[in-house]
Amino acid sequence: MNIPQLNLIHNATMEILADTGVAFHSEKAVSLFKQHGFKTDGQLVFPTEQQVQNALEHAPSTFTLHARNPVRDIIIGGEPALSPGYGAPHMITASGTKRNATLADYHQFCKLGHSSDVINVTGFLMVDPTDLPHAHYHLDMLLANISYSDQPFMGSPLSAVTARDALEMARIVFGDVGRPVMVSNINALAPLQYAEEMAEALMAFAGDRQPLLITGGGIMGATAPMKIAGLMVVSNAAILAGIVLSQLAAPGAPVVYGTGGSPMDMSSGSFYLGSAEMHLTMASGAALARYYNLPCRSGGGLTDAHTLDFQAGAQAGLALLATRQNRIDFVLHTCGILGAYMAMNLAKFIADEELWRTVTKITSEVAVDENTIDLDTIREVGVGGQYLTHPRTFELCRTEFQPTEIMNRLSYDSWQSSDDTDIAARAYRIAQKRLEAYEKPDMDPAIQRDLQNFVSKRKQA
Amino acid sequence: MNIPQLNLIHNATMEILADTGVAFHSEKAVSLFKQHGFKTDGQLVFPTEQQVQNALEHAPSTFTLHARNPVRDIIIGGEPALSPGYGAPHMITASGTKRNATLADYHQFCKLGHSSDVINVTGFLMVDPTDLPHAHYHLDMLLANISYSDQPFMGSPLSAVTARDALEMARIVFGDVGRPVMVSNINALAPLQYAEEMAEALMAFAGDRQPLLITGGGIMGATAPMKIAGLMVVSNAAILAGIVLSQLAAPGAPVVYGTGGSPMDMSSGSFYLGSAEMHLTMASGAALARYYNLPCRSGGGLTDAHTLDFQAGAQAGLALLATRQNRIDFVLHTCGILGAYMAMNLAKFIADEELWRTVTKITSEVAVDENTIDLDTIREVGVGGQYLTHPRTFELCRTEFQPTEIMNRLSYDSWQSSDDTDIAARAYRIAQKRLEAYEKPDMDPAIQRDLQNFVSKRKQA
Repeated sequence: MNIPQLNLIHNATMEILADTGVAFHSEKAVSLFKQHGFKTDGQLVFPTEQQVQNALEHAPSTFTLHARNPVRDIIIGGEPALSPGYGAPHMITASGTKRNATLADYHQFCKLGHSSDVINVTGFLMVDPTDLPHAHYHLDMLLANISYSDQPFMGSPLSAVTARDALEMARIVFGDVGRPVMVSNINALAPLQYAEEMAEALMAFAGDRQPLLITGGGIMGATAPMKIAGLMVVSNAAILAGIVLSQLAAPGAPVVYGTGGSPMDMSSGSFYLGSAEMHLTMASGAALARYYNLPCRSGGGLTDAHTLDFQAGAQAGLALLATRQNRIDFVLHTCGILGAYMAMNLAKFIADEELWRTVTKITSEVAVDENTIDLDTIREVGVGGQYLTHPRTFELCRTEFQPTEIMNRLSYDSWQSSDDTDIAARAYRIAQKRLEAYEKPDMDPAIQRDLQNFVSKRKQA
Repeated sequence: MNIPQLNLIHNATMEILADTGVAFHSEKAVSLFKQHGFKTDGQLVFPTEQQVQNALEHAPSTFTLHARNPVRDIIIGGEPALSPGYGAPHMITASGTKRNATLADYHQFCKLGHSSDVINVTGFLMVDPTDLPHAHYHLDMLLANISYSDQPFMGSPLSAVTARDALEMARIVFGDVGRPVMVSNINALAPLQYAEEMAEALMAFAGDRQPLLITGGGIMGATAPMKIAGLMVVSNAAILAGIVLSQLAAPGAPVVYGTGGSPMDMSSGSFYLGSAEMHLTMASGAALARYYNLPCRSGGGLTDAHTLDFQAGAQAGLALLATRQNRIDFVLHTCGILGAYMAMNLAKFIADEELWRTVTKITSEVAVDENTIDLDTIREVGVGGQYLTHPRTFELCRTEFQPTEIMNRLSYDSWQSSDDTDIAARAYRIAQKRLEAYEKPDMDPAIQRDLQNFVSKRKQA
């Protein structure tokens, strides 16, 4: 989208905020808006353009997300922050069957994330464990995030209570939370609403200046308009209203502009992700984030496939390349996700890691200079010669080309006779090896004890 | 690549042409160069920058490729020309086994191409039939190209003889060949050579002003340098020398700048296509073609996988998106190719067609205006409403979203109980249906008879 188009989206958004408004189903949120002189009507809030601009002026365009291991700090808005799948209720097993996810699965994804050269933010709710009471399971997930990895992690935005628990645990680890130490995902409810829990988690995190992904979007033809321009307006209105609330909670609280959206399949009623329209909403959302000078969230290894088949490869590959090309700053669902957000899978995690490395090189610049052109070698090999035994080939052959962990490069006959024809099985073995070789990062025993005590105490409450 | 980088590649290429030269293993070619005052040494030719510039000034930047059905004419350098796989010796069957390709397979790809909404150029050598004597099989393939489809087709560049046969058959169909009626693929031999057959086929086609894809490239670390900048110089020198020859044969003969290149796998010695490096050579080659104001050839649904697995989806999807994004003008291998050029497959053909439609929409512009924003609908649905039953959704739901032929959009349970979980089987069924429904396009019976007579006569010669 170009600037005149973005201006059209922005102006239409301002009209919707002025005459339709956004509902915050939280008295606390509405009263905070009221305190600051916003026009409200019941749960509806009507931010003016000036009020939106005030908020945008305070929200930073980049910020550092701190890790308990400082070498793993990340600048959000610098290099992409990459977290695994989010919110999946199911696991797809190595044999392709679906089952409910458990806390043990959650631990595996913490470990894979920690040992990954791609993932740099341990997620939250990477799977939605079904073997624990939901009232307390955020504590188990947060404890796992912090214990199994020393990367930055994501907080629990399920309600104000879970947000406060996350903030308490972060205080135990970091001493204070005056700087960004975890990032939490706030989803608006399409169209144009925030659930009470989301609004209050948003206020709690932002109040302590902890970064938020504030995400709009919707299902085109169900909770959002059929056309992308319309979707972007409704989504933008919701996101901007959430950003305004975050800046009322604490001016300068870091926020990431999150967008998404894909159609509903009119024949089955299913929401599907593997659509060209999803790519266009990703690109449009990234353009809007930059228009507002904010980091953006979108993308990931998205697919509607339930197994590592042709569809999964095509959709995840295309989505990850688009994620790179649109310079998405924070990526949920980078690795492991299947079935339109519904399931996680160990082999897919490994496959998505490789796809990310590939799209990273694909989008890199080709170096062109005397050294890379290397006329001497070209002259030495000359007409009809070969480069295979040239010293320059020996010198570069271990580092120049991107290696593969999972892709087949053998001829048909060698591949067939290798007894290793299934790429999903290959990826699954790599995941298992990584999990076997995993080593828990060191943690101060006093902090460990305090975290454990906090979790136990809160579970008894 | 930016202009200063392209200048570096160009200048290095001029140095190689001046001091290393390009070998044409054809006396006819060398003597044509000599006649025009080129410096030569045995089979080596050393074009000067001025001689290269003269050739580039004559080669057109766009041209119309005529079809026997004029509504299927294509402007090369306008919308992309898309042809199926090229040169595959094998077929991968529906069950995944490899077998030698036959003329019957060739006919199937002619039919699929003719009935495709993606393929707009019937290829040549889509598979390399093993059930016919090689001395004459170009006649059978050309006859199939012309009979089974009324699209533009590709000529037979296997030698001067096959080129002349193709020109004769084109004369039977088109009356004369004063305009471009078929396009032929000329591959340089890396590094810096042209085989006798290729050079003489090039001269025959160009002499009759029939368009040529003149393609360099090479296998990085084997027949080409390890680094992309070096590969581009060697490849560019070969391509430009070929283009110079084409313009000596007939000034203004249409040429397409073809480039490619991917690494050799140093552990197995295999050439592989599914590499980030291939993407970078594609982008660099497209940039060089535009630098010279020529249409470019590259891309396709390239993969090293031997079956429609995750790898095939990821590699073909990424390669086809790159093909679109790099605005490749002529695409060989658009549909059907597997196993690093070694095999064709019916299901892959259908899958690649869908991927092409998808990447076409992904790279389209989002329309942003009052009508697509549609504030009235957004206001009518309002806060917390739904778009599903809105008249605007009914109005748009059949046309707005890209449909799918093969991708799953069902939930896991519906997918599992559908008894249709295999995407390759789904794609294969679609191919079969298309082949069953295929209807041969009309052809003047006199032309048909003359073509048949020509082929019979030539086979007896």
